[in-house]
Amino acid sequence: MKVCRRETFNAAHRLYNPTFDDAKNELIFGKCNNPNFHGHNYVLETWIEGEIDQETGYLIDLKILSDLINEEVLEAFDHRNLNLDRPEFKDLIPTVENIAVVIWNKLRAKLDSKYGLEVRLWETDRNSVFYDGK
Amino acid sequence: MKVCRRETFNAAHRLYNPTFDDAKNELIFGKCNNPNFHGHNYVLETWIEGEIDQETGYLIDLKILSDLINEEVLEAFDHRNLNLDRPEFKDLIPTVENIAVVIWNKLRAKLDSKYGLEVRLWETDRNSVFYDGK
Amino acid sequence: MKVCRRETFNAAHRLYNPTFDDAKNELIFGKCNNPNFHGHNYVLETWIEGEIDQETGYLIDLKILSDLINEEVLEAFDHRNLNLDRPEFKDLIPTVENIAVVIWNKLRAKLDSKYGLEVRLWETDRNSVFYDGK
Amino acid sequence: MKVCRRETFNAAHRLYNPTFDDAKNELIFGKCNNPNFHGHNYVLETWIEGEIDQETGYLIDLKILSDLINEEVLEAFDHRNLNLDRPEFKDLIPTVENIAVVIWNKLRAKLDSKYGLEVRLWETDRNSVFYDGK
Amino acid sequence: MKVCRRETFNAAHRLYNPTFDDAKNELIFGKCNNPNFHGHNYVLETWIEGEIDQETGYLIDLKILSDLINEEVLEAFDHRNLNLDRPEFKDLIPTVENIAVVIWNKLRAKLDSKYGLEVRLWETDRNSVFYDGK
Amino acid sequence: MKVCRRETFNAAHRLYNPTFDDAKNELIFGKCNNPNFHGHNYVLETWIEGEIDQETGYLIDLKILSDLINEEVLEAFDHRNLNLDRPEFKDLIPTVENIAVVIWNKLRAKLDSKYGLEVRLWETDRNSVFYDGK
Repeated sequence: MKVCRRETFNAAHRLYNPTFDDAKNELIFGKCNNPNFHGHNYVLETWIEGEIDQETGYLIDLKILSDLINEEVLEAFDHRNLNLDRPEFKDLIPTVENIAVVIWNKLRAKLDSKYGLEVRLWETDRNSVFYDGK
Repeated sequence: MKVCRRETFNAAHRLYNPTFDDAKNELIFGKCNNPNFHGHNYVLETWIEGEIDQETGYLIDLKILSDLINEEVLEAFDHRNLNLDRPEFKDLIPTVENIAVVIWNKLRAKLDSKYGLEVRLWETDRNSVFYDGK
Repeated sequence: MKVCRRETFNAAHRLYNPTFDDAKNELIFGKCNNPNFHGHNYVLETWIEGEIDQETGYLIDLKILSDLINEEVLEAFDHRNLNLDRPEFKDLIPTVENIAVVIWNKLRAKLDSKYGLEVRLWETDRNSVFYDGK
Repeated sequence: MKVCRRETFNAAHRLYNPTFDDAKNELIFGKCNNPNFHGHNYVLETWIEGEIDQETGYLIDLKILSDLINEEVLEAFDHRNLNLDRPEFKDLIPTVENIAVVIWNKLRAKLDSKYGLEVRLWETDRNSVFYDGK
Repeated sequence: MKVCRRETFNAAHRLYNPTFDDAKNELIFGKCNNPNFHGHNYVLETWIEGEIDQETGYLIDLKILSDLINEEVLEAFDHRNLNLDRPEFKDLIPTVENIAVVIWNKLRAKLDSKYGLEVRLWETDRNSVFYDGK
Repeated sequence: MKVCRRETFNAAHRLYNPTFDDAKNELIFGKCNNPNFHGHNYVLETWIEGEIDQETGYLIDLKILSDLINEEVLEAFDHRNLNLDRPEFKDLIPTVENIAVVIWNKLRAKLDSKYGLEVRLWETDRNSVFYDGK
């Protein structure tokens, strides 16, 4: 069984690779390479796999899960510039793929090892990723 | 291949464990422990796994699936108080996790064994669960 | 110009008129007349009409508006039984129409008179109401 | 890791099996058997499984994926009559199950074999299918 | 005060004007001019304006409104070809604008004159219309 | 009658007033005052009021409307930093209110005067504005 908590955050980012020249950055990242940044409303689904606790009927207390997501993800990324404000993306391009991996690692480090963990992250209503650590 | 039918129902419930004292019920279930109940619009996705029937192009006739969900789930739970009106929750806390397990068991009992079955149940647009009987 | 803030709350209710006999309550309110209550995830859009403040670019600070909605509406109705827990519905049937009127009156009493006020309230994704005090 | 691109198309279709008599077509396909066709806004999620390219941070360039879906699926099906305009459904009933299989086959044929492929297709907001080629 | 009921139907249509030549039909209606038709999932919001009945707390019984919409609109248009199956569009192009006017007229003819009536109709999640009879 | 076209764009922005000191900017704009910017997926509904053209059944060709929105709004704002990249916000705080006014003015200047114009703009799924030029 899995439970899911949905949260949202808003952030600015720029996609570019400093080892590429301008033409290659433009070719690969297009409008996402705007040096002044653009931004998104990110939607995050955090899925926890485990067993139902017979005393509470909960797999995990969703309030505790929500607090964890707030502390680890929303405090870090909400209303931030991912490239400038966050050490995680100092040497990592903040694509939706990489953001999902970073989020998964941050949550995994704080989550009891008895639980499985998967994340789904939407950058727009057309683009999203799924990551489960594999 | 899997097909999915989405249905909705509205119900009242209260989360509490009669073996806990009031303070512990309050601590664990918070606002959900209101003795006068609160309620939700539940959204249920029922996923059926199987093979396409070559004569009809259907994995399962979604009208038949919808009728089954109506008889087994909506007739039982829609516009009901899960704690007071339903025997399934006489000794089971009606968390979204336990509701999903009950629904899965009710559908599994009536569904041809050649089909796989998974359910996803939303309690709010932020909280949901997935259950496949494992 | 108008700005809108969307908030949600979950509540239980029962539709019945104590001056009707059981048959008439059943005829008019159907499943909504369940004496043990049922419930909904209510979605509330609060619309404020006014002028943009040139210094801030805000019509109204949406954080202040959100705090007002939380204090006046969510604190009162979220995770509550509208019939049993709320004096507003002691002698008023908690239909979505009446809930919207009560919410509008509660917000109007606290909102600066320079602002116009409209509410839209969804009881399900199929049923909603609009009220502007007229 | 998987990335997902969501696209939409609008099409007409009719469900019937020419080897059935009228009564059996009516029994099995009901309103969907209207000889003059009806139609839907189809929503297609295309999921690609693979590894993140370290140079770009992309699993696959979603613009390239979107172009592929446009060329293979939207050019073929959008604003078309699936029964009359498309050779794929000359001898195949255009149920949502069969449409998903056809789409998966069309995309699989053009997609680099290093990628995994899954599709989810909605015919209405109540009916959808999932197919991964197995 | 206004109440709203949301319903959906699926239909096929073709946009063309028989007094235009092929080139002009193509120029104006583009892909929507496919002679074999295409289709949509239409979403209809029906808004009724009136006063709350003090005995019931209803502006209008939404079940009665839903039945009216089903009889007048869904029975007529759901799973139909608007051009071929419906007399309303024999000499009227079934654009979303004209469909909304036809629906408004059908509902207005059956609705008590004490109520105001507005409709909003979505053809896709990007295109919609609003009509109130003026 | 009105028709509506829904489009989306992604942008970065910062809310601050250079005539305020840091403490006042922080007090009024909070997290939105991050000097490194944050961003949103904006959703824009453009509503056109007019009469149905009897020859085409269109109030306005939605493809032409969509092209106009693309040229005037999306080309200007999509994947841009509203503060740094756009002259409209050189001396105007890019709140959702002001962005809506700027969009309305840009569309009004290019739209045939026979049409009425309203815009609704969402900054998040919780915050939106409506503007009709009055």
